[in-house]
Amino acid sequence: MLTLDKIYHASYVLKDVIRRTELIHAPNINSKCNVFLKPENLQLTGSFKVRGSYYKISQLSEEEKAKGVIACSAGNHAQGVALAATKNGIKSIICLPDGAPISKIEATKNYGAEICLVEGVYDDAYNRALELRDKHGYTFIHPFDDVDVIAGQGTIALELVEQKKDIDAVIVPIGGGGLISGIAFAIKSLNPNIKVYGVQSAGAPSMKNSVEHKKIERLAGVSTIADGIAVKQPGENTFDLCSKYVDDIVTVTDDEVSSAILSMLEKQKLIAEGAGAVAVAAAMFDKVPIEGKNVVCLVSGGNIDVNILDRVIKRGLFKAGRAALLKVELLDKPGQLLQVSRIIAELGGNVIGVHHERTNANTEINGCFIRINLETRDFEHTNKIKDALKKAGFKIWD
Amino acid sequence: MLTLDKIYHASYVLKDVIRRTELIHAPNINSKCNVFLKPENLQLTGSFKVRGSYYKISQLSEEEKAKGVIACSAGNHAQGVALAATKNGIKSIICLPDGAPISKIEATKNYGAEICLVEGVYDDAYNRALELRDKHGYTFIHPFDDVDVIAGQGTIALELVEQKKDIDAVIVPIGGGGLISGIAFAIKSLNPNIKVYGVQSAGAPSMKNSVEHKKIERLAGVSTIADGIAVKQPGENTFDLCSKYVDDIVTVTDDEVSSAILSMLEKQKLIAEGAGAVAVAAAMFDKVPIEGKNVVCLVSGGNIDVNILDRVIKRGLFKAGRAALLKVELLDKPGQLLQVSRIIAELGGNVIGVHHERTNANTEINGCFIRINLETRDFEHTNKIKDALKKAGFKIWD
Repeated sequence: MLTLDKIYHASYVLKDVIRRTELIHAPNINSKCNVFLKPENLQLTGSFKVRGSYYKISQLSEEEKAKGVIACSAGNHAQGVALAATKNGIKSIICLPDGAPISKIEATKNYGAEICLVEGVYDDAYNRALELRDKHGYTFIHPFDDVDVIAGQGTIALELVEQKKDIDAVIVPIGGGGLISGIAFAIKSLNPNIKVYGVQSAGAPSMKNSVEHKKIERLAGVSTIADGIAVKQPGENTFDLCSKYVDDIVTVTDDEVSSAILSMLEKQKLIAEGAGAVAVAAAMFDKVPIEGKNVVCLVSGGNIDVNILDRVIKRGLFKAGRAALLKVELLDKPGQLLQVSRIIAELGGNVIGVHHERTNANTEINGCFIRINLETRDFEHTNKIKDALKKAGFKIWD
Repeated sequence: MLTLDKIYHASYVLKDVIRRTELIHAPNINSKCNVFLKPENLQLTGSFKVRGSYYKISQLSEEEKAKGVIACSAGNHAQGVALAATKNGIKSIICLPDGAPISKIEATKNYGAEICLVEGVYDDAYNRALELRDKHGYTFIHPFDDVDVIAGQGTIALELVEQKKDIDAVIVPIGGGGLISGIAFAIKSLNPNIKVYGVQSAGAPSMKNSVEHKKIERLAGVSTIADGIAVKQPGENTFDLCSKYVDDIVTVTDDEVSSAILSMLEKQKLIAEGAGAVAVAAAMFDKVPIEGKNVVCLVSGGNIDVNILDRVIKRGLFKAGRAALLKVELLDKPGQLLQVSRIIAELGGNVIGVHHERTNANTEINGCFIRINLETRDFEHTNKIKDALKKAGFKIWD
């Protein structure tokens, strides 16, 4: 059973193992309240997960430790378990679906785990992990639905109330619910006046639905850039704890998450992964009642693939009007591109790509399109450029 | 004159104003030594600059404060002076060349400065700042060649020796030399056994040349992605201090800086600007003798334009073999692209862009090129894909 004492014990066990991440003041997240970030993206392994898995593993019997542990994950849980096992001096096996990103596989291997690549998807890897557990007597480390794991994550709350005495609200990402269960239980035990809000992706609202309908529900599918919280079904422990201790659960869209990632990157110089940015997104886009309050947003992790980060940045720039793609119809005669280029340059737009298209069913036989990738200042700037092109006789397609 | 007492005084003055940035262990920067980062990119305003400008401004007479301060910068110094003046309750005017990035102008304005956009380049803005100083009696805040500014930057060294007792070496970026002058003076005064290494961009080695030739030299031009340290000429104070207290000055290339930015982003979840990454680049690429040592790399700032960051990420991915651009020659007949796509997909490459080119003086009349943008795992993976395409009869251009 989860108790505050267990969370204090976890905190004692973790004291010399994990980083005590310092709060970072981030006033520009939302001007209507006073936001602080708890940057667990700066935690060892790049996410909070190592707290729960280390505490869980430290509590195994000597016999269990001697046999080793097994887990199934292509993400932060894999790295957390790998490092926690290595630091406890025991063996770990991590089952991953064979399509997992090479960067995650390498990281997990580097923390000392044995990797077991399983053909298929997550569920196949999960089933293989259970098979191997049964065969070899490994202890299976659940990513969230385990009291010791939850107690480990709850240590974050003990740090929070020490680091800032006058917190009004804490905003926490929810996937399976392990993180928020530990935090909400500890916070409400220590100070029931502090609000605890959960955030899920709009494309994976499994805990939100379950809590609202007062029973555990399974989503048919999930779709979100916040892959770390793309969980189809809450756990039993976490469902109970969230139902009791979480004040409200809200959702954020992928575009809101992208904006939050971009904002943290530019203003706080911190990299968050999708799941790590949902609490900040909720604060940025006024999803929870925090006006005038001292609010802590939990940044749960920073393990984002740079190829995805690259796309998030691009999308964020487009959404903020700082990049634009213009499709301009030209007559196919010399000097047209020159004229377009001149108009853009005069208005301070920076061309970073041009794509010329000649044959197209929609163009006249002697016409063509160019697609121009531009760096711009804001939407107003983009519109100014569009207007100038139109005024010069060019047709702009939207 | 610079004294250790002045640096202690600056530290006392700054105590409740700035952030005491915590060291971050970063063992994967270089496996041959033990690297820690001093993340001044997490400092207020996103760089260390606020330390020097705040201390400088705090030491002005009441009369000088009443008149206000002026500075010239399109970068971190502008934001540092703006915030420092506002926190001291006085007026600041910042002159910027009119081509300065809109994001920097907005940030400086938001910290409370009055912006004076000057037509032309940096030198024009600088001259205008001196004019306005003479006309209105503002105090000009030099970005580096000022004893109080240097003392403010030196406070970093006091934090370092407290935060880690057994430092062997500190690696510090050099532009004008204000940062390293303060740090080197303080470090050598406290413990002459600690090595202090300076790093400049290979495209702007003004301090390196000057120190080596034992006289202040001016570069004709500078070219580097580390715009924060693109300084043509060292200051008189900083030249003297670097000559006396810095053990060695090395240079890093733009590609090395890009790799360092990408590595910090992926491994430490931290955003560094070009200038902020040169010390890490020097450690990564073995530019200084640090094998087996405890080394602190100073990450001086994180104010990188996201459009530039986007390009750095792309370049870093190409340099690491994790992105590739293939130019494939095809016969212009149906099914060719399908075949290419199939070969790439079978080998696990992820196509993110295709560009078809028909007319080209180098192709046969019925031939064409496609350029394919790919996400790949590493160089080996890219070569495997190239080999498979060649084996299937396609010509690959490099």
